[in-house]
Amino acid sequence: MTKAKGPAPPTFDAAFKERFRDLVLWRRDVRRFRSDPVDDALLRHLLELASRSPSVGHSQPWRFVVVNDASRRAAVAASFRRANVSALEGYAGEQRARYARLKLEGLNEAPMHLAVFADEETPAGNGLGRQTMPETIRYSVVAAVQTLWLAARAEGLGIGWISIVEPDVIKEALDVPGSWTLVAYLCIGWPVEEHMDPELERQAWEARSEVILVER
Amino acid sequence: MTKAKGPAPPTFDAAFKERFRDLVLWRRDVRRFRSDPVDDALLRHLLELASRSPSVGHSQPWRFVVVNDASRRAAVAASFRRANVSALEGYAGEQRARYARLKLEGLNEAPMHLAVFADEETPAGNGLGRQTMPETIRYSVVAAVQTLWLAARAEGLGIGWISIVEPDVIKEALDVPGSWTLVAYLCIGWPVEEHMDPELERQAWEARSEVILVER
Repeated sequence: MTKAKGPAPPTFDAAFKERFRDLVLWRRDVRRFRSDPVDDALLRHLLELASRSPSVGHSQPWRFVVVNDASRRAAVAASFRRANVSALEGYAGEQRARYARLKLEGLNEAPMHLAVFADEETPAGNGLGRQTMPETIRYSVVAAVQTLWLAARAEGLGIGWISIVEPDVIKEALDVPGSWTLVAYLCIGWPVEEHMDPELERQAWEARSEVILVER
Repeated sequence: MTKAKGPAPPTFDAAFKERFRDLVLWRRDVRRFRSDPVDDALLRHLLELASRSPSVGHSQPWRFVVVNDASRRAAVAASFRRANVSALEGYAGEQRARYARLKLEGLNEAPMHLAVFADEETPAGNGLGRQTMPETIRYSVVAAVQTLWLAARAEGLGIGWISIVEPDVIKEALDVPGSWTLVAYLCIGWPVEEHMDPELERQAWEARSEVILVER
């Protein structure tokens, strides 16, 4: 390994790797938040780090929207309720009863709402890498969300990703440019409790799967 | 914060957070690999960790394919060459010349090829969270790729994501189930060099952007 100039590349020892493993294992989708606020400077710090995630053609297409306006938050919550009622109607019997008991979001409790979009028309990157797989512009934003999630957990901060919303309604409610696609609507705040197992496992909705790895 | 039973939740100190920042900043898209092999047990270890990434409805839809067969690898390389020639034709003048000079993949050098798919029809998760944003099944796989990428970097291992391929051709060449969608084709190996700046910055293809954060 050679390195011509600049800071020396880091190496990561066994203790770090063990802690990183803890970080990954203890990252949860949080739906129960305390009411105390999240500092804007902390969010900015986390987003600076998330923005060092990989992006197709170095396009850096992530666009972050903090949602503070009460009427906009109400529109998001209404969208969740509609989408959730519709989803509930797709289940029957005991599964329907179990779905109805799940707590799937913390929209009312979370002190911070962060919508994350992909700018589909950013000139950055000059289209490199996006001709045959244009979805990679959105995938780049997902990579940033996962980095944000881990960085937040390292601070003790919880994140919940709400996918039970109508993307067009959210986009309209937040009045963002037409070229932006909603990738993730996140609730952010200090968690009421910490767990190593996902809530959907504890509620017996779905179990941990084996890793599927095949050779070709 | 309360915790009823099981292992105590970890806290992450300033030293860890500083190292985690180094990890994120020194993760690169690698295209120059040494020829020495990557141990299968190391890959398995990394995939176990990546599989602790968030997934919609706890669906865990990631499907990993190690590509060892020479004729399959050749089909992937041919797909890259076709897609890359087509992409080159979309540029003109100096930009075209600069595109032609970029090294965009390490398919021939990388000792390990890993294709990562999303199983669009997995019963796991019972469809939870996927009704209005079905793309979240693929986004879950991207989150796993980013976790894998960081975990690999902690081991000193490099990853390059090749999006300049034809997804249908790759799927056919690898003979995977019809319900699987290609999310990422990854080259994995020990990097020849380490950098803190992306190659596309060093080659003046694209610069680092400011974080775009707006309030609504």
